[in-house]
Formats: sequence, C-alpha cells, structure tokens
Amino acid sequence: MSETKLTKIIAEHGSQELFIYREFDAPKELVYRAFTEPDLIVQWLGAENWRIDQYEHKSGGRWRFVYKGEMGEFAMRGIMHELAQDERLIRTFEMEGLPEKGHVSLEIALFESAGERKTKLTLHTIYSSVADRDGSKSAIEKNVTDHHLRMDQLFKKIIQ
Amino acid sequence: MSETKLTKIIAEHGSQELFIYREFDAPKELVYRAFTEPDLIVQWLGAENWRIDQYEHKSGGRWRFVYKGEMGEFAMRGIMHELAQDERLIRTFEMEGLPEKGHVSLEIALFESAGERKTKLTLHTIYSSVADRDGSKSAIEKNVTDHHLRMDQLFKKIIQ
Repeated sequence: MSETKLTKIIAEHGSQELFIYREFDAPKELVYRAFTEPDLIVQWLGAENWRIDQYEHKSGGRWRFVYKGEMGEFAMRGIMHELAQDERLIRTFEMEGLPEKGHVSLEIALFESAGERKTKLTLHTIYSSVADRDGSKSAIEKNVTDHHLRMDQLFKKIIQ
Repeated sequence: MSETKLTKIIAEHGSQELFIYREFDAPKELVYRAFTEPDLIVQWLGAENWRIDQYEHKSGGRWRFVYKGEMGEFAMRGIMHELAQDERLIRTFEMEGLPEKGHVSLEIALFESAGERKTKLTLHTIYSSVADRDGSKSAIEKNVTDHHLRMDQLFKKIIQ
C-alpha cells in the first residue's frame, strides 16, 4: 500500500483538535457522496452493526447514527452547519447517553482533488476540551482505518 | 462594582478556546431568556446597530444577526445544536463575508444559579484554530463588557 493510502491521524499533545488525512482513488464528487448519502455511509461504517436513523442533507438538518453489536448499543447525533457540495461539510457531533450532556464537537470534512480521480480527505475535529479529544482518540484510532479500507472497496465497486 | 459583576475573559496563550464569565442579578430563567428571545437579544447587542434577522428556537434552528453602523455592515449566523431550557445553549457561529468560508466556531453558554436571583453565566467558545481564536479576541474584549452592562440594565428594567 502506498504511503498516501494510509490513514494518518494527527493529535498534538495538549491540543483539543484532531486531524485525519487519507487519499482515495476516487473523484471528490464520489467521496463527498460517501459522506452524505445514507446508503453509502452505512456501507463504510459497517452495515452489520450500523443504522442511519436520520440524515437531513441541508444546513440545519439533523443526523443520527445507531450502533448495535459487540460493544453494546449506542447512538451519535448532531446538526449540519454547512454542506458545500463536493467541497466541505461542517457539522456538530455528540454521543448520546453520556453521564453528562454538552460534550459536543465540531467536525469539518474537506474534499480536495489530488490528481485525476484522486481525492485528499481531511477530517478536522475540534473538541470542547482536551480531555474529550483524548477520550475519543483511541476509538478513532481503532475504527477509522477500517472505515477507510471499506471506502476503498466501495469506490472500487461503484467506479467499475 | 463588585468583583463578580466584572466580565472576565480567559484565553490561554496557544489554546483555541475562550471563556467569558459574568454574574448577573437575575434568576437564570431570565438570563436564558436574554439569550433566546430576539426582542431581548437586540437590546443588549445594541438596538441602534443590530437587527435579529433570524432566530429559530429549536435544535437545528438557524440564527442570523446583522450589524449596521460605524464599523460598516456585517452579519453572523449559525445553527442551534441544543437548547436546554434555562440551562445551556450550544450553537455554531460563523461570520459572513470572510475571504474564506469554513471558519466556524462552537459556542456553549451555561446558565447556573449563584444564589437567590443571581446567575453565573459561562460563555465557552471553541474555535477551529488558534489563529481564529486570537483574531476574534480583540472584538470580544471590545464589546462584551458593554453587552453585559446593557444586560444589567435590561434585567433591572424587567425585574422592577
């Protein structure tokens, strides 16, 4: 696997943000679709465990994803701030069922062309505290590479 | 003026968040109203210069405030993530008309009782970069004390 096809996670010590970088062999219109069409989202999240309960594709729209599996059952949700077609998504994120509410983060996804039919994805998440960032980091490290490998498969299937 | 009636701004060097603390001689139900009722918001922002263009009081609702005055004309807007009655507001914030879009921040307002008819307000803003935080700091320092003094007057008028 080439260096650029590896999922790179940058979380500087003591900072309250986290960056994820990944390149895909797909045009950015398709990578954007993978983040905004429920039928595609569920495929890379893992269709056996995830359900897209709500996904309103508009500024002010709500989204809610539900997991059920080995780790139990939990849900995450948020509000779309901006959907800039094929370019950028900005939304809020919150885990449901935490002991304390209000642990919200801001997610910014950037889709940039990186050559013919190649896209550089940047996922920038800003947490409401360093502790929240540190608490989310291990779950991200555990899952995001699998998500991106499933995206590779999804794009291959769609493009062929 | 007592120490607690001073608006306190905390912005640690190199961090991407900013905290504002203030105590008001008003119950938290009233302080919450001052943040969520357009007729009250415009009074402490400064009715001669500000217009509440949009304010949808619900999760997923949009808000948009417009300034026109000595500093020119500009607008700011965002989306409500959560409105927890009398307790907490979480919303996104973005200035319109910047050279580059996507400079969004997350605002968390907390309303806590601090004795009889007293409320401690915490405004916690998390920016998408340290540069954005530093760029907003001087405008906040310039305006927030006036906002809070006008809130004092507003509460006095309503309570009497």
